[in-house]
Amino acid sequence: MSEVIVPASGEIKGKTHIYPVRVFFEDTDAGGIVYYANYLKFAERARSEFIRAIGWNQREKLQSEENIGFAVRHCEADYKASARLEDVISVHTRVTKLGGASMVMNQSFVRDGKEIVNINVKLACLVLDEGVPARMPKDLYEKVKQYL
Amino acid sequence: MSEVIVPASGEIKGKTHIYPVRVFFEDTDAGGIVYYANYLKFAERARSEFIRAIGWNQREKLQSEENIGFAVRHCEADYKASARLEDVISVHTRVTKLGGASMVMNQSFVRDGKEIVNINVKLACLVLDEGVPARMPKDLYEKVKQYL
Amino acid sequence: MSEVIVPASGEIKGKTHIYPVRVFFEDTDAGGIVYYANYLKFAERARSEFIRAIGWNQREKLQSEENIGFAVRHCEADYKASARLEDVISVHTRVTKLGGASMVMNQSFVRDGKEIVNINVKLACLVLDEGVPARMPKDLYEKVKQYL
Amino acid sequence: MSEVIVPASGEIKGKTHIYPVRVFFEDTDAGGIVYYANYLKFAERARSEFIRAIGWNQREKLQSEENIGFAVRHCEADYKASARLEDVISVHTRVTKLGGASMVMNQSFVRDGKEIVNINVKLACLVLDEGVPARMPKDLYEKVKQYL
Repeated sequence: MSEVIVPASGEIKGKTHIYPVRVFFEDTDAGGIVYYANYLKFAERARSEFIRAIGWNQREKLQSEENIGFAVRHCEADYKASARLEDVISVHTRVTKLGGASMVMNQSFVRDGKEIVNINVKLACLVLDEGVPARMPKDLYEKVKQYL
Repeated sequence: MSEVIVPASGEIKGKTHIYPVRVFFEDTDAGGIVYYANYLKFAERARSEFIRAIGWNQREKLQSEENIGFAVRHCEADYKASARLEDVISVHTRVTKLGGASMVMNQSFVRDGKEIVNINVKLACLVLDEGVPARMPKDLYEKVKQYL
Repeated sequence: MSEVIVPASGEIKGKTHIYPVRVFFEDTDAGGIVYYANYLKFAERARSEFIRAIGWNQREKLQSEENIGFAVRHCEADYKASARLEDVISVHTRVTKLGGASMVMNQSFVRDGKEIVNINVKLACLVLDEGVPARMPKDLYEKVKQYL
Repeated sequence: MSEVIVPASGEIKGKTHIYPVRVFFEDTDAGGIVYYANYLKFAERARSEFIRAIGWNQREKLQSEENIGFAVRHCEADYKASARLEDVISVHTRVTKLGGASMVMNQSFVRDGKEIVNINVKLACLVLDEGVPARMPKDLYEKVKQYL
């Protein structure tokens, strides 16, 4: 039977998760470059793949009784160079801080061996419907800790 | 005290709802024109304002016990000319068919008096969590009927 | 040294190009499902990878003297079932018509072996700045013809 | 004849530009709230309307010989509370720094009188094709200075 073709989910090398993104028309704007907000989409894809790689299922948690998940509390982005249609960008994600109910990730966007964008994101664990902070589940906390 | 500045929600003229859209960078692509999928976003904004204008609150319904709403079942778009950064487009929305659990809307995108895109959308009323068809609430049905 | 991790660009099986997409938060809406316009983004990613696989570089053509490329002229989408966060969708793309200055592609979105969305897209070859129809370059035409 | 219905372009009150945004389905995600990257879209819409209000035509500049425009160099966003479908958000934009080739804007997102998101954006004036810094045109500089 034909095997299923799956999207690239990235790879963990040491403590860094590396996720590849191709730039399509949807990502660009009339200036010919990737629209600045779209790097935050790439970043979220990479974070999603990273926490899925360590065994956390966001959809399950969203639909469960607990209804917990992560929300971005703070985000800081440095734009150093622009990317264009058909470029391949590697998103390098690392955990730089870990608390009981939050964590900080650094995400470096690399094209042709050169950093073009750098993002720091602070994520808070929340009960999603209420927006109330929640402690990170112990098993997730322990897993993330290994990448600190 | 200062009055609140509100977004344009469009106007109903006869049986047509007219909703204005400005083209921003986010809407364009590296070809310099509005990305084709984004007309479907404009169309949904216009439909949302139209059904809000006739007294239907989508968010309320989404969060209520019933959890009903509309999902697009079929969509057909003709792209006749392109729009560019800073253009103003008027979306003309009309109900063209109405059934007990579905309706069809025609949406004409006009720039400088000329149609550039035309979209037909078939919407089905659903219980959202299950994706199961639902009869349109009677009060909504009666209201929409007036615009047929 | 470490090899570069690349995004999935899909595979050609017979005359069908198969491209995998993971559903991320950006793709979903408050109804919990993939927003209807976003399937057109997935479709364009798949078409881009397909024509790149047969040797056509869209960016190069966009930046060249000729400045030619493809624009969507008509698009028809059937939404049969919805996709949710973390789903993997396979986009099956086939050329169904080929003319001197245009072509039609059928794109079937499959999840767990079941078609959830089906899209037909008519693309026209254009001089991009002017929006004027252009004959498809002979080498591209010949290549596409092999997949008809 | 029928007057044209135009999108809200916001208002300048003192030195602050206030731009209203309605939250539509496209802006939300499966968590039921506005997706974090989309605030950057709202922010760019507001900045575009602000600089258009003071007489700068981005499209014209993009298409002119000079080919100059603004690119985001740095962006910092604080997310304090979330917005939901159908919310109206007011984006309050102020110039906080002005240099010969760059400026900083603060953008406060207010819903029901309460700040939910705060963004600082550093914009650089560029020759767009080359990504090379450019001095801001004198007339624009003088106009922006009045809002400092």
